Amino acid sequence: MDAPSLDAADPLAGHRDRFVGTDSDLVYFDGNSLGRPLRATEQSLARFVTGPWGERLIRGWDEEWFELPLTLGDELGRVALGAAAGQVAVGDSTTVLLYKAMRAAVAARPGRTEIVLHRDEFPTDRYVADGVARECGLTLRWIETDPATGVTPEQVAAVVGEQTALVSLSHVAYRSAWLADAAAITRVTRDAGALVLWDLSHSGGSVPVELDAWGADLAVGCTYKYLNGGPGSPAYVYVAARHHDELVQPVQGWMGATDPFLMGPTYTPVPGVRRFLSGTPPVLGMLPLRDMLALVAEVGIGAIREKSVALTSYAVELADERLAPLGVEVASPRDPERRGGHVTLRHPAMREVVAALWQRDVIPDYRDPGGLRVGLSPLSTSFVEVEAGIDAVAEELR
Amino acid sequence: MDAPSLDAADPLAGHRDRFVGTDSDLVYFDGNSLGRPLRATEQSLARFVTGPWGERLIRGWDEEWFELPLTLGDELGRVALGAAAGQVAVGDSTTVLLYKAMRAAVAARPGRTEIVLHRDEFPTDRYVADGVARECGLTLRWIETDPATGVTPEQVAAVVGEQTALVSLSHVAYRSAWLADAAAITRVTRDAGALVLWDLSHSGGSVPVELDAWGADLAVGCTYKYLNGGPGSPAYVYVAARHHDELVQPVQGWMGATDPFLMGPTYTPVPGVRRFLSGTPPVLGMLPLRDMLALVAEVGIGAIREKSVALTSYAVELADERLAPLGVEVASPRDPERRGGHVTLRHPAMREVVAALWQRDVIPDYRDPGGLRVGLSPLSTSFVEVEAGIDAVAEELR
Repeated sequence: MDAPSLDAADPLAGHRDRFVGTDSDLVYFDGNSLGRPLRATEQSLARFVTGPWGERLIRGWDEEWFELPLTLGDELGRVALGAAAGQVAVGDSTTVLLYKAMRAAVAARPGRTEIVLHRDEFPTDRYVADGVARECGLTLRWIETDPATGVTPEQVAAVVGEQTALVSLSHVAYRSAWLADAAAITRVTRDAGALVLWDLSHSGGSVPVELDAWGADLAVGCTYKYLNGGPGSPAYVYVAARHHDELVQPVQGWMGATDPFLMGPTYTPVPGVRRFLSGTPPVLGMLPLRDMLALVAEVGIGAIREKSVALTSYAVELADERLAPLGVEVASPRDPERRGGHVTLRHPAMREVVAALWQRDVIPDYRDPGGLRVGLSPLSTSFVEVEAGIDAVAEELR
Repeated sequence: MDAPSLDAADPLAGHRDRFVGTDSDLVYFDGNSLGRPLRATEQSLARFVTGPWGERLIRGWDEEWFELPLTLGDELGRVALGAAAGQVAVGDSTTVLLYKAMRAAVAARPGRTEIVLHRDEFPTDRYVADGVARECGLTLRWIETDPATGVTPEQVAAVVGEQTALVSLSHVAYRSAWLADAAAITRVTRDAGALVLWDLSHSGGSVPVELDAWGADLAVGCTYKYLNGGPGSPAYVYVAARHHDELVQPVQGWMGATDPFLMGPTYTPVPGVRRFLSGTPPVLGMLPLRDMLALVAEVGIGAIREKSVALTSYAVELADERLAPLGVEVASPRDPERRGGHVTLRHPAMREVVAALWQRDVIPDYRDPGGLRVGLSPLSTSFVEVEAGIDAVAEELR
């Protein structure tokens, strides 16, 4: 089928109009880095200023905001993460939550000396793990893979053991889009007595996540990619209910304390996932996420994934047909079962190609070595857009 | 002068209309906890969704957002904190920044074993210090004061010494509104070879702060009180330029690393205050602050302080005249030179009084023991509002 026919047959095509800017000619291949805003968000922010903030003022904390990190976390868990209520909290940045989660995890496995990571893990995850390992006296153990793939359960099984405190991995790899077998990796990790921490930044909102079914221990993720929360919107953390007493994070703040407004003399972590909060929740920053979660709930994460697979499969098909003759290699898994929501195309000239594309309003991003990432946010991207972007890459390469 | 005459004579009275909700009959005494939104903020948020976020999309990072924590920090430093450029960064929550600052400080004073705090310090500051002390093997040393006052330079001088790593204090005490002599306390702390960390949450935007002139080492503060950033808006951190090489915080994230988009193998903290950043900056959450900083720059922090002193002095005068006969005690300093932007009124029945006031749209807050806080955000509060609120307290007490 050609692109217009694919769009005509797409049951979710109508949702694209709900996003700002989809009526322009811009080709946006970077929704995996910063999702487009929903049109509804313009109004929800403006109304928040005059309503809850401007009229209710401080009363808003009792009426809604104090619980918002958890109510929004519950909704996120329900519609996108496969997490039962009471295990997800929204707040901080992904980096800060990674720090809290890693510190809590290694403290809960005293005597174990290693954190297992993927050599091609997203930088901030590696940097946080490096810092935590250094301050807690652990060492990092790296899993190496081919640049076009990611970590397998067999690779994890080969390195975990009695010395492993924590395995920290991305569900979808930021560079290759490799979709890890999270259920199997969680199993082999837990069989070794270690904890597993999943970074869902590149999967949450586009790939179904089943944290409870996997048996995951901890997870974090960002909300500005496929969850359209806006630049630097708050992150989220999942802590499995069975760990709620055991895991304690080090940034002891009033919002994670028992009875914060009693303002008592000592910090006692509150029961439940709220203990992973520290400071005052970023209420304004959560509002676009709330808008997007309503849409995810309406459409269903399964349908979103189907469209995501159709979009990335079409991108791979066009890349094979129109870019392979120009020397471009698909550096993402060809099996859609092992591929997240983006496709990386490799060519030695891609850095210059991306710079040229930006000048003509075709917006992918570039990641070394030679990788142009085609990020295809399922609800805001059309098949016609995919074709226009791939053709623009071909033109620039010629 | 009566309240209407005071308003008529107030050169800043006209700015009150710029805030949402000041045309209602609500008496708002809690701008020291959550400031009112500027009317301009409704438009600036809506325009951000359709413009920079919706149209520029990922390009916004290069065009503005990557530097925003520092450009906004510079502006905040210039108009409100007495800090030369390059020393203030906006991001995270106050609690997370307290953690980073305290960890960095104690690491820079190895061998020293104490953190000095005020017994009546804001809870999150105490909780963070307790956690940092425990994980770094230090002890907390408490300064005790009368509930209506705060810490003096003499008290600090009496406890600091070769064993002191850090003195961490609020510039304005959240309960009593005591305004510390920050220059003198900084001096005695540094004379002992220790570092000083100022929490500016209850002073920034209402009381002039002179970090560079004091010789302060570190400071943090929130932006949702007198800086009208909205519920849970990002915090800020100040690190004196002389410490930029020495101080390293533990949450090693890509946004505080040298060349974050190179995504290199190891974390190297970037030179300057940016190294105190960790994750992706909360751009949306910074926009209301930017609006307010423009107004602070226009009015001038000196003029804001003058009105603040006039408002709190009027509240004390009315309390003496109309509430003292009912058994109410002023639990804040009477000397305006030692008083921040709020006045605490104490009476055994205040908890019930505050609950009753909320029912009639008079909104102070309550803090144990028996304290009703009259928070008077200088630019959004009128003298007529002060009188109406104090009279409402009298009616409820009768």
